[in-house]
Amino acid sequence: MTTAAAALSRLSLNQKTTNAWSLPEAVAGCLRAGIPAIGVWREPLHEIGVAKARAVLDDAGLRVSSLCRGGFLTAIDPADRRKALDENRAAIDEAAALGTDTLVMVVGGLPEGSRDLAGARGRVADAIARLAPYAGERGVRLALEPMHPIFTADRGVLATLGEALDLAEQFPPDQVAVVIDTFHLWWDPQVEQQIARAAGRIAAFQVCDWITPLPADTLLSRGMMGDGHIDFAHLRRVVEAAGYTGDIEVEIFNAEIWAADPDQTLRQMKDRYLATVWDGP
Amino acid sequence: MTTAAAALSRLSLNQKTTNAWSLPEAVAGCLRAGIPAIGVWREPLHEIGVAKARAVLDDAGLRVSSLCRGGFLTAIDPADRRKALDENRAAIDEAAALGTDTLVMVVGGLPEGSRDLAGARGRVADAIARLAPYAGERGVRLALEPMHPIFTADRGVLATLGEALDLAEQFPPDQVAVVIDTFHLWWDPQVEQQIARAAGRIAAFQVCDWITPLPADTLLSRGMMGDGHIDFAHLRRVVEAAGYTGDIEVEIFNAEIWAADPDQTLRQMKDRYLATVWDGP
Repeated sequence: MTTAAAALSRLSLNQKTTNAWSLPEAVAGCLRAGIPAIGVWREPLHEIGVAKARAVLDDAGLRVSSLCRGGFLTAIDPADRRKALDENRAAIDEAAALGTDTLVMVVGGLPEGSRDLAGARGRVADAIARLAPYAGERGVRLALEPMHPIFTADRGVLATLGEALDLAEQFPPDQVAVVIDTFHLWWDPQVEQQIARAAGRIAAFQVCDWITPLPADTLLSRGMMGDGHIDFAHLRRVVEAAGYTGDIEVEIFNAEIWAADPDQTLRQMKDRYLATVWDGP
Repeated sequence: MTTAAAALSRLSLNQKTTNAWSLPEAVAGCLRAGIPAIGVWREPLHEIGVAKARAVLDDAGLRVSSLCRGGFLTAIDPADRRKALDENRAAIDEAAALGTDTLVMVVGGLPEGSRDLAGARGRVADAIARLAPYAGERGVRLALEPMHPIFTADRGVLATLGEALDLAEQFPPDQVAVVIDTFHLWWDPQVEQQIARAAGRIAAFQVCDWITPLPADTLLSRGMMGDGHIDFAHLRRVVEAAGYTGDIEVEIFNAEIWAADPDQTLRQMKDRYLATVWDGP
């Protein structure tokens, strides 16, 4: 039996869920709602700068569950590849400066006009090999995020947790880990088996729902927990059985939720988190 | 070196690609375009009846590459399950009467309000076990169609070829086989390995493209070959290496294509088929 207080002590607001808020606004919102952790995005981070952000977060006493995001490693042109590696080193530095050990990696899709999926996956592996030691030396893990196959073409060529682990396992777990995101992985017939395999490499656990009919913009197609088809309590138990007891981030890209009052979103998110991730169906 | 004539001798029009045409119209269109085979759908088949359809197809000398579709086997209510089994037996009978050995099976999504994916998959397996001998006795294979994970919730809980094969392999290959559809499977990091495993069980090979941005209606989100991200020649070679040298069906659900002149669609389809499935990138 988990108490609500114990469950809520693991809740984290991924900033994307309250996309209208600046980082200080999101931090203040978490304080009002009693949410102890936050997943930070780089764009709002850059708006105020890393040093000031760190001060705001420390003053509030919030944990930073992750920094989103590095990645986009599939470019073919050598100059573009160098630029991507530099950008990822900057993201690693920012994660370290913020005091989080987790940089979420969205690895990138097929380059414009390319149909060479194996080639794109190979370039991701090559780039991870170049970045992993740099990350590890700074106390940051590259957290590979396998993405729903709806995004294979244009966002993330790592399509399954098994594939992400095949890559991650080539590196020490303090350099390369994985993200378990329910939206991306819930459909996979191997999800339980692969989460068990991921033990020791789970850097983040993110939740949001798969809703139907799918909203027209696939990037904004995620739903509040309970509005869709995912059995969150089941996946939470599988993740716990793999030894992960860290923060549970709610990350929802959804135009309707972004248009709502963010404080109301946080209240709903807490209620739904308790009802679906913990009590379960 | 494959000649265009040899390649075109394997081309099949899946009726859905020319959704505005009745079955006799589609047959006449195939004759005008020199397309030797057709994948028939049950709804237009019922419009004219199986006996008349068979006469029209035989007069034209067209092969029937498949009948679409059986399935929808995930209902929980016993009466609904009996009804689904009866409906599938009728579809098997129709396939036999049309002279095709392939009934494409879209297995169904989660029942309304259910989040029990494992339960739905279990009910599919149970229903296939009940239908497989009936199909085999009539010379028809149940061709399980693993569907893109965009459809796991609402259309097909079999999400990968590996999962479909795990089920198919419980039965003789003349009872249960699989469909290789590029749209559904192209993203899978295991697709090559699983197609090789499918040797002897490939009942149909269907092609259409994954396009971005994805059209708003996910059911109509398929593209003409060459308009998207799939390397068709690569997958065709992998399928051939697994021993499949049968018909290659073009099946495209797309509102723009459905609104176009079907004869023009057939001309474009032939050109694109030669350029992408055969010549390749």
